[in-house]
Amino acid sequence: MPESIRRLIESFKMLPGVGEKTAERLAFSILDFDEDQIELFSNSIVDVSNNIKKCNVCNNLTEKDICDVCEDNTRNNELLCVVDDVKNIFIFEKMAMYNGLYHVLDGLISPMDGINPEDIGLEKLIDRIQNGNFKEVVFAFNPSIEAETTSMYIKRILSDTNIKFTRLASGVPMGANMEYIDSLTLERALSDRKEVE
Amino acid sequence: MPESIRRLIESFKMLPGVGEKTAERLAFSILDFDEDQIELFSNSIVDVSNNIKKCNVCNNLTEKDICDVCEDNTRNNELLCVVDDVKNIFIFEKMAMYNGLYHVLDGLISPMDGINPEDIGLEKLIDRIQNGNFKEVVFAFNPSIEAETTSMYIKRILSDTNIKFTRLASGVPMGANMEYIDSLTLERALSDRKEVE
Repeated sequence: MPESIRRLIESFKMLPGVGEKTAERLAFSILDFDEDQIELFSNSIVDVSNNIKKCNVCNNLTEKDICDVCEDNTRNNELLCVVDDVKNIFIFEKMAMYNGLYHVLDGLISPMDGINPEDIGLEKLIDRIQNGNFKEVVFAFNPSIEAETTSMYIKRILSDTNIKFTRLASGVPMGANMEYIDSLTLERALSDRKEVE
Repeated sequence: MPESIRRLIESFKMLPGVGEKTAERLAFSILDFDEDQIELFSNSIVDVSNNIKKCNVCNNLTEKDICDVCEDNTRNNELLCVVDDVKNIFIFEKMAMYNGLYHVLDGLISPMDGINPEDIGLEKLIDRIQNGNFKEVVFAFNPSIEAETTSMYIKRILSDTNIKFTRLASGVPMGANMEYIDSLTLERALSDRKEVE
């Protein structure tokens, strides 16, 4: 196989979930691209790497020093949503139901994996909350032991404030079949039960 | 979402089988690439587009005027394998069981889709066979009506030569369960049956 195709296949294999066969298929598809598509594709890889940085305030991805959400004065600055993965901000923004601010942690506390509070940038979050005027902090983590550890840790450190700490409701997903739901989720759905309105 | 991420997502969506969600996942993964990976990836896209062309003899992909297979004097130049997709050459070469030469057609004849002999580069193949010293031509197409039409058309044009025309055996794949094989394949497997040795 020509060297440049081999190198392109190796490049595609660096992407998550892309194995040898998929990488070959994608590499060959590049051969059908026109000049504009080639330029767009290669430039956008370089541009993302050069232009994207973390927002100084909330760690969201941005091309400026401060991200669009943090700069938006119409947003509710008494409500903070804490996520452990920046992608989740885009999921929330797509939903277009949330009007508060965000803060991105660099993962979750996990003593088992040797990930301590200082490893996930907690200090920046604590500083921000202590110097802000938030009334509620929502933890929007995927449900897990590490998520609970992290939420409780933050709540405990800020226990001398009047801030309300909440987490996303956990339970049976819409459209799901109860039969196939694991017992932990069901347990949580029961203890989180809500009054029918 | 920052403009450069949006553009990268659009780029990934140009790839076959990559939808919105996958494109987002791939685009975000680029953010974790180091400088070398970014350079390798973006350069290899441009390089493939700039360096890869069709072999003057057989249409195989190459960075030179004539591909490695055509230039290799140790290969059997009396045996020609005709494929309708250049990728299949790499599949054959990986198998490392075939030592003849190749010729890549630009698809198969399909009157239904308005694809005629002149649209798939047949003239170049016919010329090559008439001026070469091939004793056997193997058609390595995916089994289909178009594959049969194309094979028969080529054989008829070259009917005044002593060349033997063959096709890949069609039948029950190794490891397959007879129960799930379609009847056309089974029919072909029966008519192509081989004596037990």
